[in-house]
Amino acid sequence: MVTQLEYSRVWVPETTGTATTQNSLCTYTFDYLPLEHGGQLSPVTLAYETWGKLNAAGDNAILITHALTGNAHAHDVERPDDPKVAWWNPLIGPGRPIDTSRYFVICSNVIGSCYGSTGPSSINSRTGRPYGMRFPVVTIRDMVRAQRALIEHLGVRELAKVVGGSIGGQQALEWAVTYPELVRKVAVVAATAALTAQAVAFSEVERQAIMADPRWQGGEYAPGQGPTTGLAIARMLAMITYQSEEAMELRFGRNPVQRCDAPSPTGYSAPGGRFDVENYLYHHGDVLARRFDANSYLYISRAMDLYDVSAGYPSIEAALSRIRSKALFVGIRSDFLFPAAHVRWLANKVHTLGGDATYVELDSPHGHDAFLKEWEQMAAALRLL
Amino acid sequence: MVTQLEYSRVWVPETTGTATTQNSLCTYTFDYLPLEHGGQLSPVTLAYETWGKLNAAGDNAILITHALTGNAHAHDVERPDDPKVAWWNPLIGPGRPIDTSRYFVICSNVIGSCYGSTGPSSINSRTGRPYGMRFPVVTIRDMVRAQRALIEHLGVRELAKVVGGSIGGQQALEWAVTYPELVRKVAVVAATAALTAQAVAFSEVERQAIMADPRWQGGEYAPGQGPTTGLAIARMLAMITYQSEEAMELRFGRNPVQRCDAPSPTGYSAPGGRFDVENYLYHHGDVLARRFDANSYLYISRAMDLYDVSAGYPSIEAALSRIRSKALFVGIRSDFLFPAAHVRWLANKVHTLGGDATYVELDSPHGHDAFLKEWEQMAAALRLL
Repeated sequence: MVTQLEYSRVWVPETTGTATTQNSLCTYTFDYLPLEHGGQLSPVTLAYETWGKLNAAGDNAILITHALTGNAHAHDVERPDDPKVAWWNPLIGPGRPIDTSRYFVICSNVIGSCYGSTGPSSINSRTGRPYGMRFPVVTIRDMVRAQRALIEHLGVRELAKVVGGSIGGQQALEWAVTYPELVRKVAVVAATAALTAQAVAFSEVERQAIMADPRWQGGEYAPGQGPTTGLAIARMLAMITYQSEEAMELRFGRNPVQRCDAPSPTGYSAPGGRFDVENYLYHHGDVLARRFDANSYLYISRAMDLYDVSAGYPSIEAALSRIRSKALFVGIRSDFLFPAAHVRWLANKVHTLGGDATYVELDSPHGHDAFLKEWEQMAAALRLL
Repeated sequence: MVTQLEYSRVWVPETTGTATTQNSLCTYTFDYLPLEHGGQLSPVTLAYETWGKLNAAGDNAILITHALTGNAHAHDVERPDDPKVAWWNPLIGPGRPIDTSRYFVICSNVIGSCYGSTGPSSINSRTGRPYGMRFPVVTIRDMVRAQRALIEHLGVRELAKVVGGSIGGQQALEWAVTYPELVRKVAVVAATAALTAQAVAFSEVERQAIMADPRWQGGEYAPGQGPTTGLAIARMLAMITYQSEEAMELRFGRNPVQRCDAPSPTGYSAPGGRFDVENYLYHHGDVLARRFDANSYLYISRAMDLYDVSAGYPSIEAALSRIRSKALFVGIRSDFLFPAAHVRWLANKVHTLGGDATYVELDSPHGHDAFLKEWEQMAAALRLL
C-alpha cells in the first residue's frame, strides 16, 4: 500500500512551511516487523520522501537518515535554498553534495516518530486506540530494518550511500554493519558507537521532565492535549546539549533579553530578570512542544541511549569488521553529546580492522548542531565520499 | 539575639546524621539588610557554626562559605573523619588546612537558604506567613553583606581567610572585592567572575522543572508539601553538571543497573531497562528533594546566575583591583560549570592588576564536585594560602 499524504495530515513542523509548498510525503505500509527487544509492530508504516530517479540497475539510491525530532522532509524542491523549510536543504539538489540529478534520494521518517510513520501516537490495530506507552521499545536496528523493507519496496538493489547525522548517524552506522552487502558508501556524522553515560543522563532528565507533566497522564493524553510544558523543558535541555559552551558564550554571553518574546514552559521565570539565553531556550521549547509528540520523544531518545553497535556481536571489533562500505566519519570539534574524540576513535577502529574509513572533523563552535548549520564544511565533507 | 538550635529544628540534610551528633547551630538575628536588587530583609537571621577560639585581637578568624544546597555544618567535631556528616570535614580540624587549633573558624549559612537563615520558607514578619516567592531577589553580594554583620557581631575585626567553593567561591571573591580591608587571604575555589551562558541555561532548566511541578503552586506550598518531583529532576540535572563526561564514563559507563534501589522522580522510567547512571541520578534527586526547600533552590541558584564581580563597577578591572588579599584561585581540570580556564583567567587578571594571586588546578576527573571529593589535592591547595 502506497499513499500520498500532505504533511498537514500528520504532525507538521512549524518551520517547514508546508502549507505553501507542494510536498509529496509518501507512505509505505507492510505487515510485520519483529523487534530487537522483543515483540513486533504490525502493521508498520514508514513515511518518506524521494527526489531524483532510480536507475534501471536500482543502484543509484542515497538514503538519508534523520535525527531525533526530524522528519522525511530533508529537501524542499520549491525552496531549495532555505535551510529553515527542510532540514538538510543546502546539501541536497542538482549538483549539490547529495546530487538529485544523479541519485535517487530517499529520506525516511523513523518508526517511533510522529511524522507519518508508525509510532506511539499511531492507532494500535489490535485495540483501535493509540499505542501510547504500550508501544514497544524500538531500537536503531529496528529503524534500519524497517528502512530496508522500504528500499526493497522502492526497487533499490544497492544503496550508493547512506548518510545521516546524530541519531541518523547511528542509523547510517547500523546500516553498514547490519547490511554490509547493501551499502557501497556510508557517512556517519556526529554519531558514535554508543552514547556516553553523560549523554544518557541528559536524555533521562529530559524524559523525566516530560513524564512529570500531569498532562502526560502515563502517555494516555488525547491528540493535541499532550504534556507541552514537560516537552518544552526537555527541549530546553536538549538545546543546551546540541550546542556548546563556546557557541552560547559567543551568541548570548550574559546579555539580558532585549524583548521577552517567548513564553517560558511554566509561565514563570526566575526572579531577577531574564537572560537572552533563557529567552532563546523558551522559544525553542515552545516551538518543539507545538510540533512534536511527547511519547515519540520518549521512545526515540531511548533508542538513541540504547544504541550500541556491538549489541548481539561478540565484540565491537566483530561488529565493525562487518563493514564493507567506504566509510566517512564526521566529528565536530565542540560536540559534547557525541564527542569528536569518540567519532575519531570509531573511524580509527574501522580503519584498523581493515575498513576503508576516513575521519573529518568540522572546526565549528556550534556543538552537535553544526551538522545542521555548517553548510560549507558539511558539503566539503560529504564530497569526500 | 543569639539562640542555639538543633539542626532538627530546621531542614536537616539526611547525610549529616545530626540526630546522633551534638552540633551547635547558632543563629544571629539583626534588624535590617538593604538588598542589591532593591527592597530589604527585616529582620535577618543567619545560622552559623563555629570551631576554635577567637583571639583577643579578633584577627584569627576564617570564614567558610558554602555552595548552593550546603549549610553551616562544614565540620563535625564528633565525627571529624567522615566526609559524609559534614561537607568539608576532612579539611577542617586541629592541624588540618583549616586549623581549628589556631583559628576561629566560622561557617555561615547564606540568606535565601532553608538551613536556619532567613529564606523563602521563613515567616515574613509583615504578613505572618512564609515569604514564598514574595521573598526578594538576593545576590551573592547580599549574602556577603549579611555575613559581615555576623562577623562583627562575633567580634571579628579582620578575617584571616575567607575560603569557599562554587557559590561559596563566588562569596569568597565578593568578600575580597567588597571588603578588601577585612580579608587578609582568600581562597576562591571552582568559581569564576561570572557564570557562562551555558551554566545559566542549565540553571534555568532546573528551575523550570521545579516550577512545572503542580505541587509548587507558585511557591505557596505548605511545609513538607513541596514540589519534590520537580526538585528531584532539577537535582538530577545539577548532578550531571557537577560531574564530567570523564567521571561518569569511569564510574557508570553503559552499565545496566544492578539493583533498582532508587525511585525515579516521576515513578516512571524510560522503556528498555535502567542504566546505572540513571539509578544514581534518581537516588541523588530523591535525597535532595527530602532535604532541601524548592523555593530556596530557585533563589540561590538565581543568585549564582546573577553574580558578576564587576556589577556596580566601571569595569571588571576596577572591581578586581580593589582586592588587597593574598588570593588563591583553585580551578578543576574537568569542571564544565565553572571552567578551569575561566578560573585561571581570573587569577591572571588579579595578578596583572598587581594583586597577589596564585592559581592551582586540581587534576581530577570529578568535575565541579572535585572540591568536595579530592581531599588530598584540596588540602595541598589550601595549605598554599
